[in-house]
Amino acid sequence: MRTLEWNDQDQSLQMIDQRILPGQFELVTCRDYHQVAEAIQNMTVRGAPAIGVAAAYGMAMAAVRSKANDLETLRNDLNKAAEVLIASRPTAVNLAWGVQHMLKVVQDSFLPVDKMVQKLVAEAKRLADEDVEINRRIAQFGETLIDDGDTIIHHCNTGALATVDWGTALGVIRMAHENGKKIQVLVDETRPRLQGARLTAWELQQYGIPYAIIPDNAAGYFLRKGEVQKVFFGADRVTANGDVANKVGSYMLALAAHANQVPVYSVFPTSTVDLDLANGDLIPIEERDSDEVLGIRFHDQQVAPNGAAARNPAFDVTPHHLLTGLVTERGIIRPPFNINLKKAIL
Amino acid sequence: MRTLEWNDQDQSLQMIDQRILPGQFELVTCRDYHQVAEAIQNMTVRGAPAIGVAAAYGMAMAAVRSKANDLETLRNDLNKAAEVLIASRPTAVNLAWGVQHMLKVVQDSFLPVDKMVQKLVAEAKRLADEDVEINRRIAQFGETLIDDGDTIIHHCNTGALATVDWGTALGVIRMAHENGKKIQVLVDETRPRLQGARLTAWELQQYGIPYAIIPDNAAGYFLRKGEVQKVFFGADRVTANGDVANKVGSYMLALAAHANQVPVYSVFPTSTVDLDLANGDLIPIEERDSDEVLGIRFHDQQVAPNGAAARNPAFDVTPHHLLTGLVTERGIIRPPFNINLKKAIL
Repeated sequence: MRTLEWNDQDQSLQMIDQRILPGQFELVTCRDYHQVAEAIQNMTVRGAPAIGVAAAYGMAMAAVRSKANDLETLRNDLNKAAEVLIASRPTAVNLAWGVQHMLKVVQDSFLPVDKMVQKLVAEAKRLADEDVEINRRIAQFGETLIDDGDTIIHHCNTGALATVDWGTALGVIRMAHENGKKIQVLVDETRPRLQGARLTAWELQQYGIPYAIIPDNAAGYFLRKGEVQKVFFGADRVTANGDVANKVGSYMLALAAHANQVPVYSVFPTSTVDLDLANGDLIPIEERDSDEVLGIRFHDQQVAPNGAAARNPAFDVTPHHLLTGLVTERGIIRPPFNINLKKAIL
Repeated sequence: MRTLEWNDQDQSLQMIDQRILPGQFELVTCRDYHQVAEAIQNMTVRGAPAIGVAAAYGMAMAAVRSKANDLETLRNDLNKAAEVLIASRPTAVNLAWGVQHMLKVVQDSFLPVDKMVQKLVAEAKRLADEDVEINRRIAQFGETLIDDGDTIIHHCNTGALATVDWGTALGVIRMAHENGKKIQVLVDETRPRLQGARLTAWELQQYGIPYAIIPDNAAGYFLRKGEVQKVFFGADRVTANGDVANKVGSYMLALAAHANQVPVYSVFPTSTVDLDLANGDLIPIEERDSDEVLGIRFHDQQVAPNGAAARNPAFDVTPHHLLTGLVTERGIIRPPFNINLKKAIL
């Protein structure tokens, strides 16, 4: 099944609960947009492309559940839902992109309310299908960067679980494998939520791609030893100059790769690009609950002393000069990014 | 109490079990040198200076338990113990230093066996006392590097627990605090064994120094934001050119600090210096059990899928060009390290 699936029967949204994988496989059902916003906030669903589509489904659900009899009331209801959904997480621009896309649909056309609701549901489904298609196109471009025999470091999870299906950076790796290239992956475990150790390892196991999990802080060791040929990760927001906000740890990984002349690729759909921001320092970085650091996963095993404090930025910014290329569904973008990114997108 | 204490009553060695702190405070008693070697291997005791002294006590214990009636047999017994103890962990040179120091004592003097055994026990105790004294001297030199208002990133644990008492890098921080400087520490949690989150946070809490634990991969975020003024860590082996092998993750931290013009100091007693090795690439790096990565602490919470593979290098090498200074009991050594390190030591 897909990471996210709309249920036509009861007009609900089902999602794989990514907080408890791989130990348990469970589905969570969202029946109103507040539940969708909560699922995004607590990371039941995560990954920039996946939360973009989840937010679009959240807007569809706001329309389905709205008691509006006229278009203006429906638009008001959707504006309220948009605010709640966009506020659920600040960093990934795909979230706002998905919401705004749905707002535009309801603003640009004049239909009876029931038809408009149907149209919004259909549009969210279309975005979901499009995400899978875009990911496959990204993968076809990106896999040309991978050579037979490569060892690749991958950060966080950017696979089928981070998208509707297939994945971005991990989709590139999967495509290389399906095309017969012999590769292996060093999987950054990705503290504090362990998306690498839990989700990426789980996906790689299913694809039959050889891998080993490493502590995030050990990437430098393998890079310096010359054991790594490429670094791949995703993106949560890319600014006009090519700076990339991505899961915390991406920056240190890119620095270590750069210091050892290993190419670094950030992989994302163009919905991740925010041309309104000149550079990465302008991206709002979410700081999550310190409990994620003080305990492991759900705080059921405390590792720090009682009363310990923690800081928990969920993302960091990799400045563009550390990046070798940006892989999108429009092709591989090379420096100078401030020129070539705009060219590819507009 | 000290991290390590010799019990004259039954000639045993007591150590704080550092695997279960801060949740539990328990003592482990070693009654022969094999138990000391095992305690070093399984990290009941850890930290380069602490395992150097633990190994010396292991040699004393080998002497105490030896059935030798003559000096030659005693020397043979101690040679056997030396092999076992040195093999317990490969990277920190202090281990070999402690053992060799004891071998030299038994080789250089001619005493009746019972007097020799007494002398070896006394010598191990002297090394323990000397460690505390050296650490205080290191701290006095090092604390001059810290300014009022500094935020400091610290990696792994280099405090009282990593030594016989007081600590190296954390000892410097403690001394600055005791001298009235207002500082705060960002504590790298230090995966996989979480020495930062467990041990350093515990020590800082006792010293009353404000701190927050961070995932190792988040150090770059804080460095890039300009929130950090200094980086301090210890060393497990320092080569003639000033390269520093230390807990895995030190290299990436130093890279991120260097990229943001933040000074990096490695702090260690001169027993950590190995002038026989020209550079850090020649240092044997221990790779520990993958279970440390796949689970958290003692594998009682599995985080990765069943059957997952992991790699677990325990140390990495920070090349000397990333280091601002080396802090020892002989003073602060500045570049060029290949000249100034030898000068300070010989």
